[in-house]
Amino acid sequence: MDERVIPPSPLLSSEEALGLHNRDELVRAVAEALAKSQLEDVRTLVSNLHYSDGARLFERLSADQRRALIDVMRLDFDAEILCALDGTVREEVIASLGFTDLAAALRELDSDDAVHLMSHLSEDEQAHVLAALPIEDRTIVTQGLSYPEYSAGRLMQRELVAVPAYWTVGQTIDYLRENQNLPEEFYDFYVVDPRHRPAGRVALSRLLRTCQPVRLQEILDPAVQSIAVTMDQEEVAVLFREHDLVSAPVVDRSGRLVGVVTVDDVVDVIDEEAADDMLRLGGVAEPDLYQAVIDTTRSRFNWLLVNLGTAVLTSSVIGLFDAAIEQLVTLAVLMPIVASMGGNAGTQTLTIAIRALATRELSTANAKRVLGKEILVASLNGVLFAVILGVVTLVRFGILEISLVIAAALVINMTCAGFAGFLVPLGFERMKIDPAVASPAFVTTVTDVVGFFAFLGLATWLLL
Amino acid sequence: MDERVIPPSPLLSSEEALGLHNRDELVRAVAEALAKSQLEDVRTLVSNLHYSDGARLFERLSADQRRALIDVMRLDFDAEILCALDGTVREEVIASLGFTDLAAALRELDSDDAVHLMSHLSEDEQAHVLAALPIEDRTIVTQGLSYPEYSAGRLMQRELVAVPAYWTVGQTIDYLRENQNLPEEFYDFYVVDPRHRPAGRVALSRLLRTCQPVRLQEILDPAVQSIAVTMDQEEVAVLFREHDLVSAPVVDRSGRLVGVVTVDDVVDVIDEEAADDMLRLGGVAEPDLYQAVIDTTRSRFNWLLVNLGTAVLTSSVIGLFDAAIEQLVTLAVLMPIVASMGGNAGTQTLTIAIRALATRELSTANAKRVLGKEILVASLNGVLFAVILGVVTLVRFGILEISLVIAAALVINMTCAGFAGFLVPLGFERMKIDPAVASPAFVTTVTDVVGFFAFLGLATWLLL
Repeated sequence: MDERVIPPSPLLSSEEALGLHNRDELVRAVAEALAKSQLEDVRTLVSNLHYSDGARLFERLSADQRRALIDVMRLDFDAEILCALDGTVREEVIASLGFTDLAAALRELDSDDAVHLMSHLSEDEQAHVLAALPIEDRTIVTQGLSYPEYSAGRLMQRELVAVPAYWTVGQTIDYLRENQNLPEEFYDFYVVDPRHRPAGRVALSRLLRTCQPVRLQEILDPAVQSIAVTMDQEEVAVLFREHDLVSAPVVDRSGRLVGVVTVDDVVDVIDEEAADDMLRLGGVAEPDLYQAVIDTTRSRFNWLLVNLGTAVLTSSVIGLFDAAIEQLVTLAVLMPIVASMGGNAGTQTLTIAIRALATRELSTANAKRVLGKEILVASLNGVLFAVILGVVTLVRFGILEISLVIAAALVINMTCAGFAGFLVPLGFERMKIDPAVASPAFVTTVTDVVGFFAFLGLATWLLL
Repeated sequence: MDERVIPPSPLLSSEEALGLHNRDELVRAVAEALAKSQLEDVRTLVSNLHYSDGARLFERLSADQRRALIDVMRLDFDAEILCALDGTVREEVIASLGFTDLAAALRELDSDDAVHLMSHLSEDEQAHVLAALPIEDRTIVTQGLSYPEYSAGRLMQRELVAVPAYWTVGQTIDYLRENQNLPEEFYDFYVVDPRHRPAGRVALSRLLRTCQPVRLQEILDPAVQSIAVTMDQEEVAVLFREHDLVSAPVVDRSGRLVGVVTVDDVVDVIDEEAADDMLRLGGVAEPDLYQAVIDTTRSRFNWLLVNLGTAVLTSSVIGLFDAAIEQLVTLAVLMPIVASMGGNAGTQTLTIAIRALATRELSTANAKRVLGKEILVASLNGVLFAVILGVVTLVRFGILEISLVIAAALVINMTCAGFAGFLVPLGFERMKIDPAVASPAFVTTVTDVVGFFAFLGLATWLLL
């Protein structure tokens, strides 16, 4: 046979590789074929589609088009598409698919993906799908769902390779060749003791390159870190990232190997956890691109309501000084500058603290040192900007006292911003409250209140 | 041999698995031994340390302790520690280590790690280290450094397995067994055509489970997506995440296979890219926990300076209406509420847009639809909060006109916030300017200026 019959895979530019252009074209072609009811064309277009491209296709279509497309794909629906879908669209697609076809699609998934998908259904829906599953799959999925949400138990897949340490390389290779119940693709496997507790890991490349009579004992890497089924997925992600893991064994309370977490699942967790902090700091609960307007409005309303409360509080601080403002209106013109600079300095420290908490670089052991540094940085910048703003104010309004007052207020507020930006998230973390959700409103309230109070208070005391 | 001689790996709780306690204790023990100059104890403590634990240890020690520890570890310094170190600490450790020992440590690294480490040195330092490397390593590192920063070329490792498609499984296994120049650990390998262009990928598990006489042609997965050496690492990360890749072949301009990117390198990129957006939105350039106070102050100063400029601009908008405020001081008390609500609504939309741009869910094809939704959500919430705030104002101040004015200003400002929060980042993205860096100051300036202008302007027009 001539090897040249295989065409080389094409060289892709950045955009082509991401399939952006192709995706837009695919959406257009599918929509057109659906409109003309050319179902065979639709089938051709979506056959052999990578599931992530399939998911993006569904997301881009209208609700009617989605339903029509599901009818075309129903019989051999790739459930991996559901795993890759945005939450809102997934609910819609699952509803159109119906429980029987959903159960049929679920059976083709690895156990971790099946459990993940089921976890997005309501209890009622779960019961319907479970009833449509064969008994062995039902047991696996039910067991998976029994672990707490966001735990390693939910993340792990139960298909794995585990062999005893006294086996030889040759024996192991024969076992891998003959056993039909192995995962479709795997990169390493685990050696277990007689109680089925993990004793080490062997990479397939190592196995392949070792002579057949050697026992696994001699080549296993004993430095495996077992993960408890109850470990939070965020901790799992930190562990994988820090130790460059490709897979890790998951064990139950008695230390028995019950599953394996692989890096491709962790990649999604890492991405989501890092992004979640950003979204929470920005006052949104989740990326809601495909959510209905009314649901999005409602979910953002809560955050804005908290902010209204803090804004009214701030406003009442200003109200305390209305007599001073009436006498010297320049105070009203300048006061937002003090509050805004404090808010920004506080947000800087807060962002650093949230990130350091997420990467576990910040702990009780070094909190004091980092706090000291943050206060120093914030107050140093406070002094620098006090000088700048003092001069600007003097030039603009020509009143030395006002420029001294605003300079002093700025130093006070920016130093407080350093304290608040650091201590507020650390406090919430210690109270087991998500610091990224709870801190921003607190920190800006502190910098607003302190900013207005310091500036207007000093002005009343010194100028009037 | 009895398999029970191998102790099971311990079951770790979340915190133990992350080694937080152990790390704190390790730091204390090492510091103590260094203080007493018990160098043998130090050596025992740090031997067999995972490189990421070694990196965390260095980060926690003082500068003097770091230097002393390097002297202990110098002769067999694990260069992977350098890869895992925070930037500021890495510079310090590299300086203490010196070029000769650094070069010796570099030689033990995979090519991707060596190139990554070198890229952090100045050109001058690079020249010194290169001179200390043997010729073949020098060539590889120099070639790696010739690719643009943050490109797939920098990320890839050059050690890889590539075999022709006409080889049989048996031939391939023999080759893998006998060849000494293979990567230490690998999960799959590539099949190449006679011009060395990738034609497919074979997972080791697939190879192991196929009969020896079968040709690779029959078992290869032809759906490999080649990555151009110049592709940006952010695009590489999106590709890996979307397609759940474990590795991907990297090809040069003529399509020849030159390297392979593996998922463990991409995990770091995914985490950093997602976190970078958060940090930039928060007005900080990078996580700077270990940076000197003066450097941190300087890097945050720039962002605060931009903010001072926009705050002064906002303040001059208020200055336009000083006569109105003098007449009715309640305006000064209420005006920050309008600005603050707009700022928060704008930040919500901005955060969603930045995330959607990063995940490539937002493109020119669906920008209009998402914009429409964001405007709708922002103005809907604007109307809701206008009613709430209008009533609160009426109850508090008892002046109907003021409560109508603040309600109207709020609707205007929150609608503008929706526009600005979406269009500003999209505009910067199209201008190839990082939207996460440039947008926040712009968006809050818009909401501040529009907020104060709408409220004070309407009040002047209707009330005075």
